[in-house]
Amino acid sequence: MNEEDITGKVLYQDDNHTFIWLGGEGKYRKGVIQTMQYLIIDNGRGTLLDPGGVHLFSRVVAAVSRYISIDKIDTIFFSHQDPDVSSGIALWLGVTKAKVYVSALWTRFLPHFGIVDTSRVLPIEDKGSSLSLPSGAVLKFVPAHFMHSCGQFGVFDTRSKILFTGDIGAAVFDDDNETVFVDDFEKHRPLVEPFHTRYIASNIVAKKWCSIVSALNPAMIAPQHGAIYRGESVRQFLSWLSNLRCGVDIADKIFGV
Amino acid sequence: MNEEDITGKVLYQDDNHTFIWLGGEGKYRKGVIQTMQYLIIDNGRGTLLDPGGVHLFSRVVAAVSRYISIDKIDTIFFSHQDPDVSSGIALWLGVTKAKVYVSALWTRFLPHFGIVDTSRVLPIEDKGSSLSLPSGAVLKFVPAHFMHSCGQFGVFDTRSKILFTGDIGAAVFDDDNETVFVDDFEKHRPLVEPFHTRYIASNIVAKKWCSIVSALNPAMIAPQHGAIYRGESVRQFLSWLSNLRCGVDIADKIFGV
Repeated sequence: MNEEDITGKVLYQDDNHTFIWLGGEGKYRKGVIQTMQYLIIDNGRGTLLDPGGVHLFSRVVAAVSRYISIDKIDTIFFSHQDPDVSSGIALWLGVTKAKVYVSALWTRFLPHFGIVDTSRVLPIEDKGSSLSLPSGAVLKFVPAHFMHSCGQFGVFDTRSKILFTGDIGAAVFDDDNETVFVDDFEKHRPLVEPFHTRYIASNIVAKKWCSIVSALNPAMIAPQHGAIYRGESVRQFLSWLSNLRCGVDIADKIFGV
Repeated sequence: MNEEDITGKVLYQDDNHTFIWLGGEGKYRKGVIQTMQYLIIDNGRGTLLDPGGVHLFSRVVAAVSRYISIDKIDTIFFSHQDPDVSSGIALWLGVTKAKVYVSALWTRFLPHFGIVDTSRVLPIEDKGSSLSLPSGAVLKFVPAHFMHSCGQFGVFDTRSKILFTGDIGAAVFDDDNETVFVDDFEKHRPLVEPFHTRYIASNIVAKKWCSIVSALNPAMIAPQHGAIYRGESVRQFLSWLSNLRCGVDIADKIFGV
């Protein structure tokens, strides 16, 4: 990664709609899973995707403020309930007036992160739903249950054709093999295979999700960890994942009995 | 529940070993999942099981201090990574010198809850392990992966024969049907069925876990939510759970496609 990659990158832009990757964590990462945050700006209003934990709050606030004033954030989306995704919720609700969207499975759990105004936390029902943005662009909440969380969604931005996936597609880098984009899936595969094999619950849901996502024909797949799939690597990743044996498919091996 | 049930109850006691349920939350519960914490005292040293989130920290510290000085807590166990289980980690590491045990899948995620000394967070490998207490009693970390978390353990206390299960066995009460113990499983079943059907990943792991647990022959099953199974209800719960179709078994219904 170079300096530009640390400070962020515009992934899509037209007259009234921008999809931004907010940059990597670089040196903050020792012993802590690296995460990536995304910001959609539509007619000057902001949507944050998995803005992250307490640990990252100050870095993400600073990154967002390079593009938009914090008080213009209307919407915060959490793909699932993990600490690296959502533990900053009380801080974000404090500095914005945003509504939070998360799986209906987790609305009663999030208050345990701290003092939270539950009227601002809106449940997404299992089948998914959509949110219209000011310009007419639509965010689709795409079901991804059991991949890994039992209540999980991605977000498909119909304007940019970028699919934000949370943990799906996540890569675990060493210090010296980090990239921003996946341009060679076969080279990238060893960095994603152990995570998906152990964390995703079953090939049943992997295959179902790949079928739903293929029908959306995304231009990019943007996960919360690792690197962003574009071009041919999108299709190659989906093809690989739809055939993966994982989770309960290899339960004997994982449990050791 | 009566007043005694709110302040806690000793579930097992001998000369040098005590297993304590630390009481319910009572009135704090509106819109927030109710949780239960447990404390094991062995030769005067403490082990805390799922002490909970930021939200509950002051209540749980007060409850623990009725039985033991906080600085005698040597061990904190987290069944999985959810906010209601573990988001208080930074606070607990601040007031104790305890080591934290959690699935190896989550050690890199927990620091996102805040500033955490990662050298005090010890990973439990997938197959499980054991911890000897001062008196010679042993805590077994029993694998419970994908029930619901993909990296999850329970704790079997070989002395008291009590199995702490985290979310497994969890009941969701209304305001007026709360009990501390399950003495009539058929009456309790409607309170546990929706949760287990939706959150547990598959009958494959439910059946495997019930087989592992039956071999331990627990006297009680103590979950993090709901009520404590004892007597005949332990066997009845395991028999019911081992036959449950859940999670990816009903993926078409959950995804709606």
